Amino acid sequence: MWEKRMEWPLNAAAVLFLVAYAWPILQPSLGHTGRVWCEVVTWLSWAVFALDYGVRLRHAEDKRAFLKSNIFDLAIIVLPLIRQLRLLRLVTVLNVLNRNAGLSLRGRVVVYTVGATALIVFCSALAVLDAERAQPDAPITDFPDAVWWSITTITTVGYGDRYPVSGTGRVVAVGLMVAGIALLGVVTATLASWLIRRVTEADENAQAVTREHLDELTREVKALRAELAEQRAGVSPEASEPLGTARG
Amino acid sequence: MWEKRMEWPLNAAAVLFLVAYAWPILQPSLGHTGRVWCEVVTWLSWAVFALDYGVRLRHAEDKRAFLKSNIFDLAIIVLPLIRQLRLLRLVTVLNVLNRNAGLSLRGRVVVYTVGATALIVFCSALAVLDAERAQPDAPITDFPDAVWWSITTITTVGYGDRYPVSGTGRVVAVGLMVAGIALLGVVTATLASWLIRRVTEADENAQAVTREHLDELTREVKALRAELAEQRAGVSPEASEPLGTARG
Amino acid sequence: MWEKRMEWPLNAAAVLFLVAYAWPILQPSLGHTGRVWCEVVTWLSWAVFALDYGVRLRHAEDKRAFLKSNIFDLAIIVLPLIRQLRLLRLVTVLNVLNRNAGLSLRGRVVVYTVGATALIVFCSALAVLDAERAQPDAPITDFPDAVWWSITTITTVGYGDRYPVSGTGRVVAVGLMVAGIALLGVVTATLASWLIRRVTEADENAQAVTREHLDELTREVKALRAELAEQRAGVSPEASEPLGTARG
Amino acid sequence: MWEKRMEWPLNAAAVLFLVAYAWPILQPSLGHTGRVWCEVVTWLSWAVFALDYGVRLRHAEDKRAFLKSNIFDLAIIVLPLIRQLRLLRLVTVLNVLNRNAGLSLRGRVVVYTVGATALIVFCSALAVLDAERAQPDAPITDFPDAVWWSITTITTVGYGDRYPVSGTGRVVAVGLMVAGIALLGVVTATLASWLIRRVTEADENAQAVTREHLDELTREVKALRAELAEQRAGVSPEASEPLGTARG
Repeated sequence: MWEKRMEWPLNAAAVLFLVAYAWPILQPSLGHTGRVWCEVVTWLSWAVFALDYGVRLRHAEDKRAFLKSNIFDLAIIVLPLIRQLRLLRLVTVLNVLNRNAGLSLRGRVVVYTVGATALIVFCSALAVLDAERAQPDAPITDFPDAVWWSITTITTVGYGDRYPVSGTGRVVAVGLMVAGIALLGVVTATLASWLIRRVTEADENAQAVTREHLDELTREVKALRAELAEQRAGVSPEASEPLGTARG
Repeated sequence: MWEKRMEWPLNAAAVLFLVAYAWPILQPSLGHTGRVWCEVVTWLSWAVFALDYGVRLRHAEDKRAFLKSNIFDLAIIVLPLIRQLRLLRLVTVLNVLNRNAGLSLRGRVVVYTVGATALIVFCSALAVLDAERAQPDAPITDFPDAVWWSITTITTVGYGDRYPVSGTGRVVAVGLMVAGIALLGVVTATLASWLIRRVTEADENAQAVTREHLDELTREVKALRAELAEQRAGVSPEASEPLGTARG
Repeated sequence: MWEKRMEWPLNAAAVLFLVAYAWPILQPSLGHTGRVWCEVVTWLSWAVFALDYGVRLRHAEDKRAFLKSNIFDLAIIVLPLIRQLRLLRLVTVLNVLNRNAGLSLRGRVVVYTVGATALIVFCSALAVLDAERAQPDAPITDFPDAVWWSITTITTVGYGDRYPVSGTGRVVAVGLMVAGIALLGVVTATLASWLIRRVTEADENAQAVTREHLDELTREVKALRAELAEQRAGVSPEASEPLGTARG
Repeated sequence: MWEKRMEWPLNAAAVLFLVAYAWPILQPSLGHTGRVWCEVVTWLSWAVFALDYGVRLRHAEDKRAFLKSNIFDLAIIVLPLIRQLRLLRLVTVLNVLNRNAGLSLRGRVVVYTVGATALIVFCSALAVLDAERAQPDAPITDFPDAVWWSITTITTVGYGDRYPVSGTGRVVAVGLMVAGIALLGVVTATLASWLIRRVTEADENAQAVTREHLDELTREVKALRAELAEQRAGVSPEASEPLGTARG
């Protein structure tokens, strides 16, 4: 299978992209050659994703259906041509978590939520630092500050000791806020579904009791039928055959 | 149908209202003529809504029931006479989303939530900018700032780098905060209902099993009845008719 | 019934308490006589609550059970002796909403939530204004500011443009924050239960189908029994009596 | 049982640890001897936890399974060797709440949530005060400020009048924010499960009705079978035996 074979190359491309994206931001003193190399790696990892998408599209039986159900993947390929949105591609690294986890639905939700939250916080911190550094009087000036700001934003705490002032930084912040609302929703929903499950186990017991009643009834009807068959074989024939002999 | 025919005129009126409301706020240098035109368009779009309400009220069989169940629509017609509340009328544009979406309940909730959130953020930014601009030393002075403030408020992040200081601006802010709590609630509830649905599919399977048991039992009883009928037709009649002949 | 008769006096006492509590805070220039009158009204309304509690305790058959299940009411009577906690008594005004609403569970939750939120915001604004006014350099100095701060706190937005600095003010703030979390929880839970109800109506339909199957089965068994009775009355007697006559 | 016997020593160790941890932070003027004593008590309480873990590991039949399912306990033993993380050990005091409460699932969730929230707020305030005091120009300088900051953070209000500036303080803050999201989730989920339970009681009634139908059907079938037995004993035998005598 193509998708099975591409799992690790895609993950490697995602990690390489992440490193090549983060390096020049975290080390502003990086020379021109280093920056060019990072740019090259970024484009190569993009090429891996584009290639994967192309091959999957080619293998798809119903091309139109594939395009429709993979609209998000297509966005990940096309949007990075706009520099700031390239960052969105990192979301694909989450597919690893999604594919490998042989867990229950709730377990998968937990793993996915923790992984996605960590990745979103890290990438947003990078993106906002990149955008704000150029700004004079920006409250966010180094990476620890940026991570701190990311976390206060995604948890919707929002102290206001650090906040973005550039347009790009604010767009990243909006993304983080939306992620924060989703995070709150997922945590609550997971807890609620667990609690409701525990509380509604009584319902299932009620179901089980109903089924037991039903089984008892079935046994009763079977006994009735057996009795009838016995009566027919033992009594009625006795009653009809002797009559025949009486008649004969 | 009146409601079907009025769908697009109402939407057009809503969009026109939005444009006529936004223009003088976004371009403060707009001359007197422009402002008058915007005012006229605003009142015309209001007239369309009032007309629609009037016709629907006239067509309604039970007028009292119509008034009761459309109290919100009546408010939208009457309240705009107070200038700041005119803005509330924009909520009607959401009816488009509601009417056209041939989606599942959850799908409709998602479309409606995203649409309503975007519209509320946009309109609140306009309203707060309109109210704060007159204020000396107000932290919100241009449209991007107002949108940024709207989003930090509706997501309940609240950095505090921007906040309204006028009474009207604060009333708009309170509306945004309430919308933010509703937004959080809707996101969480949608996720929870999806997760609970997925987890409780086992319940439905239990139901299906119960029904299968029931069907088996029904087959058993039908077989019993058929056997009895056979016995009656084959054995008992044989037993009774010969007796009749024996008697004859 | 005592409880029925006391409904309106208790509500009146609650409103009077609210007015007598709010007046000296909202009008700091109120003279000494006015303040004494407000104090008297405050104590009179407290006496009405204490009397109501005493009569209900006397009428109760199981005094120990009454004390246990009305521990909150007792707290409302005893705690106001501590000045700041007197404010807690206002929560009793919510009993009106609770008692009068002839609504569904969800409807009652909505009415109660809106009413409680409004009352909590209003009372917290009063309490915080009372506590902060004495403070030099306090950010909260007038009633509109206090209400604005209350709302930004209960919605967990927390801009930080206004915040309490005194100990009492912060205790009120903590109460507001807890109320805010409860508010978010109630809104989300109400939405979730509505959405889950709508989505799980299919379950009930499945139940109905099961019951229909069951009814069909019951009809089948009844028909079987009727047939058997017919057979017994028509065929078997015919079969046995002629035999008797044949024997005779 | 070891676990039963160790319940109170462990709780005592937890409380002693808490006191020995809090004292030097709350009283910065504490002399050298006092600090040494607190340090000794801290290590002794750690030793009690380590001993308890060791004995339980020794008694465990499947050592590998014990290690796996008590990974959190092991972390609590090993991590305190890093000074700041020692604080995590306090979470064990919650086991008391968990073990003793003979309550329903929902009741246990409520007790646990309130207890854990109070403990987390108290310990975070201590930890952040310890970390921030050394910082010049830190906004958090005394214990009431630290508690106030803890509460504004865990409720995700985040005014921004107080916030940590040191690395350690920010790590504590992140823990508080995560706890805040969990708190919101637990409150909402508990409310939702209660509300859904109340609303879905109709479902159980439907179940009960189904079961009643089923019982009626069972009675019907039993009556049928009894009738058949009667027919067989009364009519058919009469029919067959006379036949036998007729034959004889």
